Formats: sequence, C-alpha cells, structure tokens
Amino acid sequence: MVSKSKIKLIKSLSQKKQRHNSKMFVAEGKKVIAELLESSFQLELLWSTEDCFKTENGQTEIVSESDLKKVSFLTTPQTALAIFRFPDEVVIKSTGLIVALDGVRDPGNLGTIIRMCDWFGVDQLVCSQDTVDAYNPKVVQATMGSISRVEIIYTDLPHYLKDASKKETAIFGTFMDSENVYQKRLPENAILVMGNEANGISNEIEKLVTRKISIPQFGDQQETESLNVATATAILLSEFKRGTFTEK
Amino acid sequence: MVSKSKIKLIKSLSQKKQRHNSKMFVAEGKKVIAELLESSFQLELLWSTEDCFKTENGQTEIVSESDLKKVSFLTTPQTALAIFRFPDEVVIKSTGLIVALDGVRDPGNLGTIIRMCDWFGVDQLVCSQDTVDAYNPKVVQATMGSISRVEIIYTDLPHYLKDASKKETAIFGTFMDSENVYQKRLPENAILVMGNEANGISNEIEKLVTRKISIPQFGDQQETESLNVATATAILLSEFKRGTFTEK
Repeated sequence: MVSKSKIKLIKSLSQKKQRHNSKMFVAEGKKVIAELLESSFQLELLWSTEDCFKTENGQTEIVSESDLKKVSFLTTPQTALAIFRFPDEVVIKSTGLIVALDGVRDPGNLGTIIRMCDWFGVDQLVCSQDTVDAYNPKVVQATMGSISRVEIIYTDLPHYLKDASKKETAIFGTFMDSENVYQKRLPENAILVMGNEANGISNEIEKLVTRKISIPQFGDQQETESLNVATATAILLSEFKRGTFTEK
Repeated sequence: MVSKSKIKLIKSLSQKKQRHNSKMFVAEGKKVIAELLESSFQLELLWSTEDCFKTENGQTEIVSESDLKKVSFLTTPQTALAIFRFPDEVVIKSTGLIVALDGVRDPGNLGTIIRMCDWFGVDQLVCSQDTVDAYNPKVVQATMGSISRVEIIYTDLPHYLKDASKKETAIFGTFMDSENVYQKRLPENAILVMGNEANGISNEIEKLVTRKISIPQFGDQQETESLNVATATAILLSEFKRGTFTEK
C-alpha cells in the first residue's frame, strides 16, 4: 500500500525548485534505476512492479502498475520509479576536456549530451545557470543512466571561463565561418562551449572564447540550417578525441 | 473562409496511407514552407495568418489563427500550414556516399538524419520499408526544410544492397567491437547503413554489410549504452567527409 506522503513527495519533484530544496530527483525505468543503483548515488525510495533490483532488504517496495501510473512523469509509464539524492558537489577540474553549456534549454538535447560525454570519457559537464536542469525527469530518462557517470556542475559560466582563461586553458566555441575544426590540432586540456538551440553562444560568452572553430558544411547547399546542438557536440567530441584512442 | 473539404483533406494527411494514396503531405511553419516553396516541390494549398510568402496570386489563403489551430498536427501550432505534392520518384545513384536506414522508427531521429545528410552533402537517403515515413508531419518539421534538398527513396533494402554489392560498392555498418572507424581510410563511393534504435542493424542486413566498423568508446566506463542512431550518424558522416573538404 503506497503512502500518501510518498505520492506527494514524488509529485513535488516534478518542480525544479522542490528538487533543489530537497536535493532529490526522480528516475524512471529499470535500466536507468539499475545503473544509478550501481553508482554512488544514494537511494531514497524505490517502487517497482517486480522485485528485480539488487537492493538491501526492504528497500524495494512492490507496487501495482496503476500506482506507478498515478505518479509517473512519463507519457509511457515504466515498471519502476525511484528517488535518489543529488550527488555531492564537486570541484571543476583544470585538466582534460570539459564541455560547458551556455543556455541549452531542451531536456532531450541535454540528456543526449550527457550520454555523449560519458561515451567520450568527458567526466565533467559545466552548465550555465540558465541551462535546463539535469535532474529534470526527461533529462534523467534521456541520459540512459549516463547521469551517474558524468559530473554535472551548474555555475556562473562567465565567471568560470574568466578564471579558466587566466590559467590559459583554451576555450573553444563554434561560430559560422571560423576556422575549420578538421584542420585544427586540438589540445587535450580544453573547454568546449556549446550554445543555446536558437541563439547559439551568447555575446557575453563569445568574448571569452579564445579559439573560434566551425564544422564545415559540404555540398552546394547554402540554405541548410546550422546543425542542432546535440549533433554539433557529437562531431566536436569525436574530433577532440579521435586522435587519442588507445586499445584497451 | 476555410472550406470543409480542405479541412478534411489536411486532416486525412495525418495518415501515412492517405499521404501515399494522394501523394501529398503537410508542412507547418513559415521557415519550412518558405524552403519548400524555393524547391521543386509542387504547392497544393497554403494557409497562413499573414501574406508573407512568395507565391503566385491567390495561392496564399489568409486564415485565422483559430482555423490553423483546428487543423495543426503540432502541439504548438505555427502561423502557416501548407500541402505539397511528393517529389517525382528518382533512381538511386551508384556513386558518392549514400546513407541507408534499416528500420529507423523515431520521427525526430529521421528528421535529424535528413538534416545531417543535407549538411554533409549526402543527397540521397535510402530507407527500408519499415523506416518511419519521411512525410510524417513530425519528420517534415524536424528536417527544418532539408527534406527539400535530400532525395529520400523507400525500397526493399536487402534487394538494393545485394545489387550494390554485385557492383562492388562498399557497404558499411556499425557493430560492437569491429574495426575502429578513426583508423580506417573511408572511400568516397560507399553505402553507410544505420540500424534501428533498439535493435541496431537486422540479421538479414548484417549479412550484406561488407565493412564492419565501430565508433570506439573512450574512458573507463564500460556500461555506457551505445550512442543513439542520430549521434552515431553524425560522427560517421563527419568521418566520411572530413578528409574531402575543400574551400569554396
């Protein structure tokens, strides 16, 4: 029998403010939950239609599909829903490749970018305060579990970049008609800034970018809309990392 | 005053079967419509809240926002909606890079892939019969107009690939633990097969792939879910094309 207070807690976590006050977020779906359970994230509540998770005694509460449906944030409810605590705050590293997002708004794009960071071994993602919340249920879902392996830090982006440039870290950003990324030698220590879906990198951040690059467009088509932010991030991460691959 | 028969026609085009019987599809939004008007696609109907398109006399029907809202397929209706005729059928080329899709189901993924083909100068996209319909309103929307510049051909994919391999065209497909794409020399004439979101390339098609490649995973993370099909397509198109860029 599910308790009313727990239903209330789950529902409250659809709100960013509530998530950040309570430092908890909701994850839905067996796969995502199983991956979060394997990580250092602390479990707060787990509802499932079957006893299929490696949890301590009594941690998994078996509930009905209709109970889950009542609280699910998804159009197609999953067979499990969990609440986890936010991870501890971390310090941004000054080496390696860091991806920084300047106002990315779409949950699907953020989720895909987190998954790509995981794939390409980028373990920190720095987000401007106006980037969509990574603990938004749609983002958590879209990361397919990668959210447990990439550290996500929300910060004052201009301030962070100013500090980084004092330490002479190269700050890359994509702009039309800049240097062809395919012809550049890309450093191992760098910050790659990706901009907002509609407006790209903001004027304030553009001033802090020290290495302007572009992904060239092929063929004769002049009208093609620029690549979307997730696609562009994929291509750029591939370019930064392709030279560094060593067999395991 | 909008006619009932036109409302009925627009609504019928939400169905794949109706689109293919009538060889017409719906495009919504000023930008997409403007790009289609610039192309060789033939306009059948154009409803707009303002007279902002370069059309012949009488082609643009000015309608109210509420009329548009009634027929829109989108959650956020646009200020214009048009019906265009399907382009003429074309023959698949035997040179250059062709992307072939084996059962891609998500309209957003197909739209993004069409947009990437346009960006990378891939002018033909071959789709298996079970790939989502490119004239689905969500796909048309997601292409941002690129649908007018990439020829899309639905065909019996195994049959097409068998024919292509007789002509010794290299057929590439991604599989786990195959050859690292970053270390391969990629030919200019090739077919790149991308698989279904959940199951990848089907067994039948796998047998026809002559060059198995993979995008290596970086870092120590072993659990990362494979890249999504749109992300993988972006990285592979970039790899196929990066060596061929010449300044315009």
